[in-house]
Amino acid sequence: MVRIGVDVGGTGIQVGIVNDSNQIIAQDSIVTRPDLPFTEQIRQMAECILSLVQSNGLQEQDIQHVGVGIPGIASPEGVVIKCANLGWNHVPFREEFNRVLNRPVYLDNDANVAALAESIIGISAGTSSSVFITLGTGIGSGIILNGKIWSGFHGIGGELGHTILALDGLPCNCGNHGCLERYCSATAIIRMAREAVATHPESTILSKAGGNPDRINARYVTDAAREKDPVAMEVFARFIRYLSQAVANVVNFLDPEMIVLGGGVSKAGAILLDGVREEYWKYVNYRDQPMPPVHLAILGPEAGIIGAAMLG
Amino acid sequence: MVRIGVDVGGTGIQVGIVNDSNQIIAQDSIVTRPDLPFTEQIRQMAECILSLVQSNGLQEQDIQHVGVGIPGIASPEGVVIKCANLGWNHVPFREEFNRVLNRPVYLDNDANVAALAESIIGISAGTSSSVFITLGTGIGSGIILNGKIWSGFHGIGGELGHTILALDGLPCNCGNHGCLERYCSATAIIRMAREAVATHPESTILSKAGGNPDRINARYVTDAAREKDPVAMEVFARFIRYLSQAVANVVNFLDPEMIVLGGGVSKAGAILLDGVREEYWKYVNYRDQPMPPVHLAILGPEAGIIGAAMLG
Repeated sequence: MVRIGVDVGGTGIQVGIVNDSNQIIAQDSIVTRPDLPFTEQIRQMAECILSLVQSNGLQEQDIQHVGVGIPGIASPEGVVIKCANLGWNHVPFREEFNRVLNRPVYLDNDANVAALAESIIGISAGTSSSVFITLGTGIGSGIILNGKIWSGFHGIGGELGHTILALDGLPCNCGNHGCLERYCSATAIIRMAREAVATHPESTILSKAGGNPDRINARYVTDAAREKDPVAMEVFARFIRYLSQAVANVVNFLDPEMIVLGGGVSKAGAILLDGVREEYWKYVNYRDQPMPPVHLAILGPEAGIIGAAMLG
Repeated sequence: MVRIGVDVGGTGIQVGIVNDSNQIIAQDSIVTRPDLPFTEQIRQMAECILSLVQSNGLQEQDIQHVGVGIPGIASPEGVVIKCANLGWNHVPFREEFNRVLNRPVYLDNDANVAALAESIIGISAGTSSSVFITLGTGIGSGIILNGKIWSGFHGIGGELGHTILALDGLPCNCGNHGCLERYCSATAIIRMAREAVATHPESTILSKAGGNPDRINARYVTDAAREKDPVAMEVFARFIRYLSQAVANVVNFLDPEMIVLGGGVSKAGAILLDGVREEYWKYVNYRDQPMPPVHLAILGPEAGIIGAAMLG
């Protein structure tokens, strides 16, 4: 028996066969197609899995279950309540999926499954509680309590990115103002860098972007900061300060055993981790007490597939 | 066998005998004396309990255990790690207490024990998870998960009042800026009212305070708002907006089964509850989904004694 993990992303849907040691033994992918009817998109996913399984000498009956991580929320009954980038609302995923592939299907939020994977075989393995913060275009989070995903009583929790960090602050795509992800995501780094190079065109951030502010990405900013470009260092320090306050908010309220930072921005590595470690405790109320250590995620993008396979 | 609940407040320490039906059958109090050495203060507490027990025809051996709610944090070993208003740091409470009264002693944060009491015999009875927010001079919170107090892995959680709601906002006593309790506590209402009457001396807030802005309290503001004083209504609306965002932050991140509002400001009643209910969902990310209902606490100040007795 094998488990299947599916990671539904904005541009691609990754599918993997996961063995009992939580290793991906075979992998395939299809393109995310928000333009398709959900019935068709789900059929393509199920067929991709079937074909992957068969090309590895296995059959449908060898699949213990299929776990799916989505950038949205799902019900325990296998309905995708909301998945913005696919434009799905109350899509009966399990029902549609089982028309093609009749094995148990479990769905959960993508940050939650990454949090689960890290807590079982990743950096937070051995902890009973952790909060995984994924720093990408936006900010997601996954809460693990007593070894299990906690997505809230109504399944709408774990949305750290849309907690308010700045009263009456910057407008967010969600319709509110001052959401945390406006201040410490890749998008925030890019915005602050563009503002900074407008008055400091000498910054190496701009040269890395070929002189075009529209081509600035978070990687250029962190690279420039690591190379001691003063403008980049200032932008990065602001980002670290905001992220540290976000981490402190999690600690002041929930105080998990460990905080894990993942997502694209976490590839910045030591400059990010050292920055947060040096600063976040300042914003903790009981700042002279033991508090959660902060670590970088170690499973990388595979956490999505592996964690999804761990569902159920 | 009876249980003893102790509620350590800023001005008084309330002691109660609690029966198996979670009712307070006898009560006494002593004055909080931060000026005393902790050994003496703890001795007075133990003696107050002994005398209360004896005057009710009971003996030390009839005490099953003593639970103590403190405005601070304590270790599972019975050490008060920090209790600011008593000036206590790492005080070996259980050890000192047991010199006078040798029965099991359990300690926890006062908002936590109130949350526990409400979740067992109060408004949130029957829920498995809830967050109790106490609106007083500051803001405290108690988290109940799977029927138990969750004060965090390191015991420093539940400090909703010191999560940051306003980046680079108003300075807080804790040394940081923009803490949530600067915006939706009684202190915040008073501050906003004083600012408002400075330019609107015609407000009935000021007449209720005898014309003296220094005498304004949260009660005068909520009363004036209920009586449709325009200035008070505006101050109260701002307070409701901030509190709604605080509630939404809890829901976006943790999504408990229920939110409970307690503390002095919650005496405002319907005007508070209706305001939050009408507004908080706007700040929830999945705002078209079922979300936690908001209710007022029902146990009143006795929750402190009853909840403390429920410890252990």
